[in-house]
Amino acid sequence: MADLTLTTFEWVPEPPRGFVRDLRVRWALEEAALPYRVVGVPGDRGPEHLAHQPFGQVPWLIDGDLSIFESGAILLHLGELSAKLMPSDPRGRSEVTKWVFAALNSVEMASLPWTMLKFMGHANDTPAWKFVDDFLKIRLKHLEPVLAKREWLAGSFCVADILMSDVLRVVDSQGGLAHSPACRDYVARATSRPAFAKAHADQLAHFAAADKARS
Amino acid sequence: MADLTLTTFEWVPEPPRGFVRDLRVRWALEEAALPYRVVGVPGDRGPEHLAHQPFGQVPWLIDGDLSIFESGAILLHLGELSAKLMPSDPRGRSEVTKWVFAALNSVEMASLPWTMLKFMGHANDTPAWKFVDDFLKIRLKHLEPVLAKREWLAGSFCVADILMSDVLRVVDSQGGLAHSPACRDYVARATSRPAFAKAHADQLAHFAAADKARS
Repeated sequence: MADLTLTTFEWVPEPPRGFVRDLRVRWALEEAALPYRVVGVPGDRGPEHLAHQPFGQVPWLIDGDLSIFESGAILLHLGELSAKLMPSDPRGRSEVTKWVFAALNSVEMASLPWTMLKFMGHANDTPAWKFVDDFLKIRLKHLEPVLAKREWLAGSFCVADILMSDVLRVVDSQGGLAHSPACRDYVARATSRPAFAKAHADQLAHFAAADKARS
Repeated sequence: MADLTLTTFEWVPEPPRGFVRDLRVRWALEEAALPYRVVGVPGDRGPEHLAHQPFGQVPWLIDGDLSIFESGAILLHLGELSAKLMPSDPRGRSEVTKWVFAALNSVEMASLPWTMLKFMGHANDTPAWKFVDDFLKIRLKHLEPVLAKREWLAGSFCVADILMSDVLRVVDSQGGLAHSPACRDYVARATSRPAFAKAHADQLAHFAAADKARS
């Protein structure tokens, strides 16, 4: 029986709430109905934080004597604990694994700089912005026909869908899926799952509780 | 016995030679001494290419009836074929997996836009460039003390080192490791391995042979 503890920040300001990456892990845990607890770490990124997450980010997951950072690594680990998250046959695992990397290293590599620049108000007429904008557009152009032809990336819903739809959800929140209807439908399909709703509400409640503790 | 075929572009222009991502796969295959063949795909990104690599990129790897894209997914797959690339115990695999994702989703997510903008001559005084530059700097700031304290990321040399050192090698080629001596030493340590030299020479020879066929 897995003994799972998820660590996220104990508090963040309003704008990132609902988008902090612990959401991906909460979502997977809810899909699999695995029991877990959530703990908060202060924002000062001290030595103990860096021992678990060397880049000073969240989340990390403790499973018994394993401490795992990187949402991709955590979700592949959880995939091995539940067939609701990843099939156990080699072909099925291979399909899921390549789409997990595609979500993070082909799409999010383009979408995260894009989203940050949009959010910071730097989406304007400079060559650097144009490069970032084109980079995302070409990735969405390739993803669109894939998602137009299938409900989920690897046959049935899996951890790759949690990652890909969470990556695209952030782009959508900044208006970036206006010309990608299949991507937008996919985000709607994924985020209408009860496990997403629970994970999202739980993240908002976690930070709201910290507001009260600070006031 | 694995039956491995690596696909890369049949030809690319001079600048990316030595940096095309099939190098990561060649390097892993050479480290593990696994037999493989290399085939070339034209640059027009036709339907058969997109069936194997939906983003029109390279490489992909065929292993029997599996077709795998994303260098991270390919290297984890090869890691399961050879203890020279990844230990087989759960703790060892977990360590390697998290550093594989860290290389691609924490470091390369920052370094690839940085390198592209540098290469394109857009590393200048705009807020968008400043964001990209700061993004890479903070990731290197966190990685530097990790690499100052260990020879390899996860105990002994593994697929995560192939990915991380290849990601950093590109940054180094654009002068981006000037203030990161431990990162620079790590790149030198990794690229002094005979398997890297063989993989690098083979990639250059592959594209040079295509030059001759075109002339």
